Amino acid sequence: MRARIHVTLKKSVLDPQGKAVQQALSVLGFREVRDVRVGKYIELELEEGDKLKAEERLREMSERLLANLVIEEYALEMDEEE
Amino acid sequence: MRARIHVTLKKSVLDPQGKAVQQALSVLGFREVRDVRVGKYIELELEEGDKLKAEERLREMSERLLANLVIEEYALEMDEEE
Repeated sequence: MRARIHVTLKKSVLDPQGKAVQQALSVLGFREVRDVRVGKYIELELEEGDKLKAEERLREMSERLLANLVIEEYALEMDEEE
Repeated sequence: MRARIHVTLKKSVLDPQGKAVQQALSVLGFREVRDVRVGKYIELELEEGDKLKAEERLREMSERLLANLVIEEYALEMDEEE
């Protein structure tokens, strides 16, 4: 089964990397960019056919390793079938 | 207009960060993970109402700054309306 996890900074947390990208874009002439936030995008291939079980395991992975829940949040997506 | 860009390594390019994550997950007991690829996820807020024009500008931003097309590829998504 294929899964995708988006890890993003919480709305209330400042994103200096995003600000740096916004400034670099502005210098390049892209002044229409009002805000930029940068997150992580993780694609996983799992040996697990059962979607509910896979979702539970992915939540565990996200909370134990992939996301820092103090400042980040995560969203899961899974493909329908194996 | 809100837009999202996914920047990922091309399939043919090795992903050492993904391998490190896979190994860390394995050490934590997540041995069902067969493969991991890590990419960037960029959310932008644009002062541009026209979708076609916005798409063209986003492609330019991706190709000039956000993605390294030698080793990476990108995908755009845009919200329907302002």
